[in-house]
Amino acid sequence: MKVIVIGATGAVGKAVAEELGQRHQVVPVGSRSGQYQVDITDIASVRALFAQVGKVDAVVVAAGALHFAPLADFTPEQFYVGLNSKLMGQVNVALVARDYLNDGGSITLTSGIVADEPIRNGASATMVNAAVEGFARAAAIELPRGLRINAVSPTVLEESMGSYGPFFVGFVPVPARRAALSYARSVDGAQTGQVYQAW
Amino acid sequence: MKVIVIGATGAVGKAVAEELGQRHQVVPVGSRSGQYQVDITDIASVRALFAQVGKVDAVVVAAGALHFAPLADFTPEQFYVGLNSKLMGQVNVALVARDYLNDGGSITLTSGIVADEPIRNGASATMVNAAVEGFARAAAIELPRGLRINAVSPTVLEESMGSYGPFFVGFVPVPARRAALSYARSVDGAQTGQVYQAW
Repeated sequence: MKVIVIGATGAVGKAVAEELGQRHQVVPVGSRSGQYQVDITDIASVRALFAQVGKVDAVVVAAGALHFAPLADFTPEQFYVGLNSKLMGQVNVALVARDYLNDGGSITLTSGIVADEPIRNGASATMVNAAVEGFARAAAIELPRGLRINAVSPTVLEESMGSYGPFFVGFVPVPARRAALSYARSVDGAQTGQVYQAW
Repeated sequence: MKVIVIGATGAVGKAVAEELGQRHQVVPVGSRSGQYQVDITDIASVRALFAQVGKVDAVVVAAGALHFAPLADFTPEQFYVGLNSKLMGQVNVALVARDYLNDGGSITLTSGIVADEPIRNGASATMVNAAVEGFARAAAIELPRGLRINAVSPTVLEESMGSYGPFFVGFVPVPARRAALSYARSVDGAQTGQVYQAW
């Protein structure tokens, strides 16, 4: 299979590219480096990427920004950081991917454990991750040609505990290679409309 | 209790105002009619409403627009109809209500059955309703002074089958007064971070 991995320079994306690269042709895409680059918040940029890469069998997105802050300090504008990037950025990819996926191909999006398990400063993160899972659940029943869509919900990564650790005290971190398995399950599997919890 | 009901002219809001009016002082708010009006998509309009009404014990929102269309036709702009209105409109109310609620007061938002049970044309509806529930789940753990927040997820109303019936073939509709009970459970109850399914 030919698989686009968007966010391939991030901790999750790098592990996904390694895992899938064992048996598939991976096209890594970054936001600011590498041969292929995309700004997922801009659907025109997403269209340009797929026009370059052409037909594929699977699309993985492990990208998207979120704002973290105490609820008391959150402004509407700060909620839009995550809505524009992690939510609509991934939706943009799904909308465009639909036209470039071969029959039976798949889209795999990224949510996160805080969709189910809220943390302090995480009002936007829970909202956005729950929305990503909702989109995958709903899009699954309308995709044509046997196309599939799932979301992977990783917990905090061992590799990210340096920066995210203080937000996730008491959570059991997993290595990025464990999270990558959930993406492989979506890409190589046959289910659709699922949320695979990598925790 | 003094309870603001935003969306009091809608099918759900009217029934909520009747149910709560049996034992509480209800302040009904519409978008285009009545003594109190608000545009929930504009946080300045929400601030102006609360400045007029003053301190309250509970806030109910049964308002917010969504775009319905086949996934194949959906544009990013159409996804933003629901993100700006049903999602961020309700978040705007919650953010402002925080400063006007008496200790122990509550916020009750509205999601919908398609958060869990997707329907054709409903990719935005599932996404937005899931996001509303996520926001309630996360905000609940950060609200001060014993403030509570829940979401009610109504199924299709008997009263709305004329317009929404074709989208909900096979769903069991409930009367608006049944949906209103779930709002009463949130307002008069003591739980927080819950989603009450009115179906």
